[in-house]
Amino acid sequence: MDLKKFIRDIPNFPKEGIIFKDITPLLKDAEAFKEAIDKMIEYYRDAEFDYIVGIEARGFLIGAPMAIEMGKGFIPIRKPGKLPADILSKDYDLEYGSNRIEIHRDAISPGDRVLIIDDLLATGGTIAAAVELIEELGGQVAGIGFLYELSELKGRDLLTGYDVFSLMKE
Amino acid sequence: MDLKKFIRDIPNFPKEGIIFKDITPLLKDAEAFKEAIDKMIEYYRDAEFDYIVGIEARGFLIGAPMAIEMGKGFIPIRKPGKLPADILSKDYDLEYGSNRIEIHRDAISPGDRVLIIDDLLATGGTIAAAVELIEELGGQVAGIGFLYELSELKGRDLLTGYDVFSLMKE
Repeated sequence: MDLKKFIRDIPNFPKEGIIFKDITPLLKDAEAFKEAIDKMIEYYRDAEFDYIVGIEARGFLIGAPMAIEMGKGFIPIRKPGKLPADILSKDYDLEYGSNRIEIHRDAISPGDRVLIIDDLLATGGTIAAAVELIEELGGQVAGIGFLYELSELKGRDLLTGYDVFSLMKE
Repeated sequence: MDLKKFIRDIPNFPKEGIIFKDITPLLKDAEAFKEAIDKMIEYYRDAEFDYIVGIEARGFLIGAPMAIEMGKGFIPIRKPGKLPADILSKDYDLEYGSNRIEIHRDAISPGDRVLIIDDLLATGGTIAAAVELIEELGGQVAGIGFLYELSELKGRDLLTGYDVFSLMKE
């Protein structure tokens, strides 16, 4: 199945000049969604890790099904003010503006190995911040996986030394 | 397994006087997370529906794995400004403040039958707004499911006439 045809380009969203990659057509198509999750899982079949970390909100849509199918626990990294217990936070720049992400301090124990999952690799700022959060808590990043990579934005350059997988890229 | 012991009470979050039900311990425990999803699925095993609608963001964590496991497509209802294509939006009051949710107009076609999934039923405002969005687009709500219901807030009263299921309640 050509999964790329389920990714819709929306020009000028969220602002002028940005072409947004809309994954909602893929999510809505039961077969395409299942095939995408299955192929993500296939890549990590022999990976050794303890948890899947998903980035709010679209990373939840990919990471949570992967966790269930792979028999792993799921840890959310969230936008500011969403996680209720003691948090570690990190500011980062993104393609359009800046932002902050947070993780519960008790989510990761030293030595925990995690896969970080998000829908899109663009400039890489969010994921680089997620890596920092996990490593500050003593965790090890066993891999970083995306549904879609915008290669020309070179987000991968921020993730040197890590195993970075993208199911689709352009 | 007593799934309730994986739901953590956080007092005074997001504001004074609210006891927040934190599902992150459940998500992190692979067996508990899997059992919760399996039991949600078990309830809907004979339900006739076309799509699962999940409410951002924690509804994604429950609804997306259910969609994958049940072989259905997934439709997100999101917070304002997140969905890139043509949207229908609805304002609603919630336990602390007010908010707005949005759905893509092309997400639902007349006659589509959907399950609405979220993590928590509190006052019911969010879910009642989600029902309105779906029905305005001609969809049919085949069921509404939650991980956890705060019965004393009587959110169920806003959902009369619908099949409402909660895996846990207090």
